[in-house]
Amino acid sequence: KTHTDCMTSRNILKLPGFIDVHVHVREPGATYKEDFSSCTAAALAGGITMILAMPNTNPPVVDRSSYDYASALARVSARCDYALYMGAATTNTDTVAEMAPQAAALKMYLNQTFTTLTMDDMTVWQKHLQNWPKKMPVCAHAEREKTGAVILMASLLDRPIHICHVARKEEILIIKSAKERGLKVTCEVCPQHLFLSTADIPHLGEGRAEVRPVLCSPEDQAELWKNIDVIDVFATDHAPHSVEEKNSEKPPPGFPGLETILPLLLNAVHKGRLTIEDLINKFHRNPRKIFNLPEQPNTYVEVDMDYEWTIPQAMEFTKSKWTPFAGMQVCGAVHRVTLRGEIAYVEGQVLVPPGFGQNIRDWPVPKKQTHPLIDKIE
Amino acid sequence: KTHTDCMTSRNILKLPGFIDVHVHVREPGATYKEDFSSCTAAALAGGITMILAMPNTNPPVVDRSSYDYASALARVSARCDYALYMGAATTNTDTVAEMAPQAAALKMYLNQTFTTLTMDDMTVWQKHLQNWPKKMPVCAHAEREKTGAVILMASLLDRPIHICHVARKEEILIIKSAKERGLKVTCEVCPQHLFLSTADIPHLGEGRAEVRPVLCSPEDQAELWKNIDVIDVFATDHAPHSVEEKNSEKPPPGFPGLETILPLLLNAVHKGRLTIEDLINKFHRNPRKIFNLPEQPNTYVEVDMDYEWTIPQAMEFTKSKWTPFAGMQVCGAVHRVTLRGEIAYVEGQVLVPPGFGQNIRDWPVPKKQTHPLIDKIE
Ligand SMILES: [Zn+2]
Ligand SMILES: [Zn+2]
Ligand SMILES: [Zn+2]
Ligand SMILES: [Zn+2]
Ligand SMILES: [Zn+2]
Ligand SMILES: [Zn+2]
Ligand SMILES: [Zn+2]
Ligand SMILES: [Zn+2]
Repeated sequence: KTHTDCMTSRNILKLPGFIDVHVHVREPGATYKEDFSSCTAAALAGGITMILAMPNTNPPVVDRSSYDYASALARVSARCDYALYMGAATTNTDTVAEMAPQAAALKMYLNQTFTTLTMDDMTVWQKHLQNWPKKMPVCAHAEREKTGAVILMASLLDRPIHICHVARKEEILIIKSAKERGLKVTCEVCPQHLFLSTADIPHLGEGRAEVRPVLCSPEDQAELWKNIDVIDVFATDHAPHSVEEKNSEKPPPGFPGLETILPLLLNAVHKGRLTIEDLINKFHRNPRKIFNLPEQPNTYVEVDMDYEWTIPQAMEFTKSKWTPFAGMQVCGAVHRVTLRGEIAYVEGQVLVPPGFGQNIRDWPVPKKQTHPLIDKIE
Repeated sequence: KTHTDCMTSRNILKLPGFIDVHVHVREPGATYKEDFSSCTAAALAGGITMILAMPNTNPPVVDRSSYDYASALARVSARCDYALYMGAATTNTDTVAEMAPQAAALKMYLNQTFTTLTMDDMTVWQKHLQNWPKKMPVCAHAEREKTGAVILMASLLDRPIHICHVARKEEILIIKSAKERGLKVTCEVCPQHLFLSTADIPHLGEGRAEVRPVLCSPEDQAELWKNIDVIDVFATDHAPHSVEEKNSEKPPPGFPGLETILPLLLNAVHKGRLTIEDLINKFHRNPRKIFNLPEQPNTYVEVDMDYEWTIPQAMEFTKSKWTPFAGMQVCGAVHRVTLRGEIAYVEGQVLVPPGFGQNIRDWPVPKKQTHPLIDKIE
């Protein structure tokens, strides 16, 4: 896209580099869907300077050797900074915790997934929640009653838990109650549950609308907005599939989202549904706090607050050539992204090569993890 | 059965009247399976002098009029004392609590049942847990993660919760942890999960073995015994069906249990797996405490501790003419039952007529609910 048409109405705001804590890179194992290079290009184009990569790859990241393998691929291909999740499984309860210092976090799949990582038995959850260091984050895909069950279990063990992609009224309300009672629970919400609902399934088509958690009712959607203060984190759950797959008889669940999340959130700011403070808190500060992420030096995103555009049929950099948000009119666009002093993205062009991205868990841990008071002027 | 063969080895122990907090009477709606008369005859023959009747009848007991209907039937037909549960539904969140003083307790079905009483949404659970008086019991059929979720929700609302028919290792262990952290949770376990497991399915036959919770693994079974101190209550979940139904293509889940629970538990005492104190605590004292049940005056059960017998293909008084415990050799039998001064059962004969039983929630609430220190000598 070109910005010439909006040159006269420029309203550029400098924001911190955004952090997406929930990204399915698809490498290793399904690089026709996405790989570190395409995924991190899409991230940068979306104003995201750090991604946390999910472990349900092929092979899944569940031990040192699979971690080393994925890590080597990321090192040569990632354009933005990153960290890699470790996946909890029934088979690695006694061993996975040794990887905690290198990991973005531990990911627990408590509902059905398309990998071997589903854990059906609460005694297995308990072992993982016990063994993973308390100061390191644990994230759970835990829908409906599983939200309640895993919060109870974490609280019985007196450890924090982060709930992925909250989508339903019953989920956000039990998290709200748990927070009010002082339990150490945090949560994230994805754009598909904030901006889409079952009401959108007819125009999306049933197959393309497949996603986990499913698109929920307009009542669920409204409840997320009503409890926006309960939401700690915005994250994409970027889950790219090919258009052919999404149009097939058995469409796999998942939406791409890296290039659209920030414009959609800026548009919500434009409409007065969010403040810029909310945006920075939930898409930069809280991810840093919850996941113990370092500040990226000289890193910021310049956004054009007044640029109006319509989300196209597909975005530029992800290999997933469709988007469920196609046709939405939004106000707000990414203008330029600076990552560790380098211009990484500007005006539709990604300028940093594969390999520029760094694994932030390889950075030396600063003695004192201070954080600028006002990220806006970083 | 006759006791002549054991007259020489009589070892009669006088125990309090036992209380079964989980009984499906099947009346109204399915009196060919069981009715108040046959059910309470079976109870007395089993040494049980009070039953709490489940609300998933037809019509279900969910409001004043259905309660009045079931209550009128019970009044003319019950031979032992009783109280009636109210069923929680998605439709009665705002009204059912008014019935609390008359009810045995509120029953919440959080898993699939064969009635309209299943509640799929945690926001509905929350309303019921909020509205039902905190001093009155709430019981939940809440398997697996639902155990955790409902314990969390009750604890967030600072109210007690009773978990029905705990069957699995993961369930008893999370209840154990919750109790250790001081949460107000109690639980019951049924004979089918203490004395049967998946190892028994081949000889029972798949259809007859159908029950909810299902028969679990020998490991689950062993964990219940290992954590016998975590179990507050023994209850049958007496769920009679006709032999034809159990042998049919679609066998309904459920076992009869009123006439076999006490012999099975006495046999466990005989084998040293339980103490008499455990038996009295979990089958009389704790049910009274958890459900605020009055002491039945002049009520006791005389058991023959040394009588050895084999459980037959079907028991005498239930209409459900089969038992999953057939063929088991047990030591211990009910000799005589005295209910409010009347000999209600002796040596195979039920001596009190339908209508002798009373709804204990109609009794005046005593000023001071004292309880004899030693029930054995009541
Ligand atoms: Zn997920
Ligand atoms: Zn995901
Ligand atoms: Zn621009
Ligand atoms: Zn910052
Ligand atoms: Zn049940
Ligand atoms: Zn039942
Ligand atoms: Zn006898
Ligand atoms: Zn007593």
